[in-house]
Amino acid sequence: MYSASYQDKSILKWFSVVCGLILLSIVPSVVFASTDGSGGASGAATNIPLIFLWIAVILMLAKASSLIERVGQPAVLGELLVGVAAGSLYLVGLDFFEPVKTSEIIHFLAELGVVILLFQIGMESSVKSMMKVGIPAFIVACIGVILPFVAIYFLAPYIIGGLSANAYLFLGATLTATSVGITARVLKDLGRSDTTESRIIIGAAVIDDVLGLIILAVVSAMVMQGSVSAGDVLIIVFKAAVFLVGGLLIGAWLAPRFGRGFSKINTGVGMKFALIISFGLVFSYIASLVGLAPIVGAFAAGLVLTPVYFEQFSNPPFVDDLHEMMKKEKLSSSVTKKIDSLIETHSHRHMVEFVEHLGHFFIPIFFILTGIQVKIAALWDFKVLVMAGIITIIAVVTKVAAGVAAGKGVKKLTVGIGMIPRGEVGLIFANMGKGLGVMDDTVFSAMVVVIMLTTLVTPPLLAMALKRS
Amino acid sequence: MYSASYQDKSILKWFSVVCGLILLSIVPSVVFASTDGSGGASGAATNIPLIFLWIAVILMLAKASSLIERVGQPAVLGELLVGVAAGSLYLVGLDFFEPVKTSEIIHFLAELGVVILLFQIGMESSVKSMMKVGIPAFIVACIGVILPFVAIYFLAPYIIGGLSANAYLFLGATLTATSVGITARVLKDLGRSDTTESRIIIGAAVIDDVLGLIILAVVSAMVMQGSVSAGDVLIIVFKAAVFLVGGLLIGAWLAPRFGRGFSKINTGVGMKFALIISFGLVFSYIASLVGLAPIVGAFAAGLVLTPVYFEQFSNPPFVDDLHEMMKKEKLSSSVTKKIDSLIETHSHRHMVEFVEHLGHFFIPIFFILTGIQVKIAALWDFKVLVMAGIITIIAVVTKVAAGVAAGKGVKKLTVGIGMIPRGEVGLIFANMGKGLGVMDDTVFSAMVVVIMLTTLVTPPLLAMALKRS
Repeated sequence: MYSASYQDKSILKWFSVVCGLILLSIVPSVVFASTDGSGGASGAATNIPLIFLWIAVILMLAKASSLIERVGQPAVLGELLVGVAAGSLYLVGLDFFEPVKTSEIIHFLAELGVVILLFQIGMESSVKSMMKVGIPAFIVACIGVILPFVAIYFLAPYIIGGLSANAYLFLGATLTATSVGITARVLKDLGRSDTTESRIIIGAAVIDDVLGLIILAVVSAMVMQGSVSAGDVLIIVFKAAVFLVGGLLIGAWLAPRFGRGFSKINTGVGMKFALIISFGLVFSYIASLVGLAPIVGAFAAGLVLTPVYFEQFSNPPFVDDLHEMMKKEKLSSSVTKKIDSLIETHSHRHMVEFVEHLGHFFIPIFFILTGIQVKIAALWDFKVLVMAGIITIIAVVTKVAAGVAAGKGVKKLTVGIGMIPRGEVGLIFANMGKGLGVMDDTVFSAMVVVIMLTTLVTPPLLAMALKRS
Repeated sequence: MYSASYQDKSILKWFSVVCGLILLSIVPSVVFASTDGSGGASGAATNIPLIFLWIAVILMLAKASSLIERVGQPAVLGELLVGVAAGSLYLVGLDFFEPVKTSEIIHFLAELGVVILLFQIGMESSVKSMMKVGIPAFIVACIGVILPFVAIYFLAPYIIGGLSANAYLFLGATLTATSVGITARVLKDLGRSDTTESRIIIGAAVIDDVLGLIILAVVSAMVMQGSVSAGDVLIIVFKAAVFLVGGLLIGAWLAPRFGRGFSKINTGVGMKFALIISFGLVFSYIASLVGLAPIVGAFAAGLVLTPVYFEQFSNPPFVDDLHEMMKKEKLSSSVTKKIDSLIETHSHRHMVEFVEHLGHFFIPIFFILTGIQVKIAALWDFKVLVMAGIITIIAVVTKVAAGVAAGKGVKKLTVGIGMIPRGEVGLIFANMGKGLGVMDDTVFSAMVVVIMLTTLVTPPLLAMALKRS
């Protein structure tokens, strides 16, 4: 389209325009700071229109940050970095993003975003292809949970002295679970969702989320009750197993029946979409009831829906128009067949596309918010920095080591690196540890920094590992 | 597909299945009531997975309620009625929906829903076609604001005695603004969005929202300060005018430039969607800054985007596949042209489709929630019922009378009926009146019932008027 140099110049130009426009969109909130936008239907105290502005700014920041792809990095790294920058603006006196950090509504949208991401990834995976990598994924997950847990439990006393035994348990537990969200986005951004390595990584990440959340349930019961019986542990494990196996079996049986049933009420596109999204949301909810992360439920729901086409429902209007045209034009049967097969492929795509469209709205909120929440200020304490650095190294090394279990003929380093990022689940652990009083502010900040570092370090490492192979 | 009677039987069967499933999805929340689903990334107190369940139930209720279309009523009436039923379940001891009524997050999603609805309607309208009905719409709006305001201000003292002069001002003001949301949904459901009458109704509803919100600003200034100067009124009117005229002109100039600019960063579908939705959200925000309802801003943003195609961005994958097939198959030029023109039509559709997909998620939340918030209990007081009844009649008659101004060759009754429903803006007035202490609980309940009655009465009346013509 353009020569490279022209394009680069125009990028610079447009990047400055983007930044300018974002600043411009922030100005009114400063100028009119005293004006209270008319509230919502509820007349609640929340300034709803201001949250609309936040979302718009977050979406445009996310999209502007995709410039990072020009230097070969996955877009998610751009979103995280832009988030960190936005979250640090208060240091230079701009506090536009301060209320975003504590907004319950933005946190909800972010959580819904990561649920939709995992739902979408589930829809693009299938139980069959997951089963193929089941054994290596399970081994990688187990080692990847045990190694960091044990290493940090035993080494942390030498790095951060003077804490209680429970605190070290919590530190170890915090770093067990790989963030499926981050890794999945990186693999998706790099167009590698469909390799054996990716399936092992995603499979292992889902399994270690499950393992991690079981550990969380056990460890927090220990902290709260002082001890925990083998029976309690068994109940937790049992509930999780019932959900996963039961959910996949019952879901696979129910989904097509639901589709046929509801199509008798109404065959509109809206009905199809309501069914799909409700399926994902209900699974997420049930997962949380048995003590698992909602994202695990969303992923399972996506897996269940993969082979379901909901063919009873209306086509997208484009398809109807094409059909009509084909009838009128009396095309040759070979062309008709080709178009029909395209339509069939996209009939499933149409379902995924709806979830993708929701994702375009919700997912960037999760990643920008994750970045925004990093407290750069915590990094200015040299002690915290060293602590975080050493723990990060342990966290990285132990997960890379787990990659060795990936089996023959698989790029072990890629798998290991793919397991590095900790995210949502780690943050849940850290928050809970802080809430239970076993982590003080310094340890908490250090752990958040570790989680961020594992996340920031993965995309370039993974991109390198994938390119090398 | 099926014979009518078979279909009806199967509807009954499936309706019971739907109800059963919804109840089933509620059961876990009762059984596991003590289990706290693991929180979000923020560790906030909100039970985020429970909100996922609420959304799923709301979406499925909304879709199940579309059965009402079988008896010729628009789907929105079904959503409102199902909402009223859901909101009254506490009367029989089922309190699943009680926390929904006060959830800030659900209110936010509902408000975003009505914003997306108006954005979508704006995208499907155009400034040109709105201008054509500009004069009659403006006259209908003015009369439709003045008549109910004056009638209720002077008649209300005879219906509800003993209130302050300010209270009667507030009662009158509450019933000035037609709810664009409800009317637009009814017209859309009945497939009549594109008639002259519809354009007059929507145009007048937008104008009287603007007028209504100006009155709100003026009346609340009067209540709070005791009086209001002509200068204050002028400033309020001036800000609104600047926003609408300025917004449309500047927006129309900016939108295609933004599109070209951002397409240099990234031509992905995600970028296009982020641009579109951010445009709508920023307009909503700016509208709230100048004291207008966010929905007015969203509608204006939609109007601005109508002629913008963002043709620089990637096509949907389906289109790319079609192009490739067309190249391979070497179709006749007439067929190629036909397919190309279909693609061009759907290139704009693709943009609207994204907003529609978001709408499938958000819009039902608004209408179900509106229904849920109706307090059936307030209707059991005979005095309240009579008061509400009389005020409703005044509210209906004055708006129908305003329809006479629609001009020659237009179905005046249709226009008048289309103006009846009061909604979001009326509820904002009522809430503010309650907050300022000029409406007590009884008057407030009566006004909410009036707003609901105008809303419930419109769909069947409008459907009748449209069928008659």
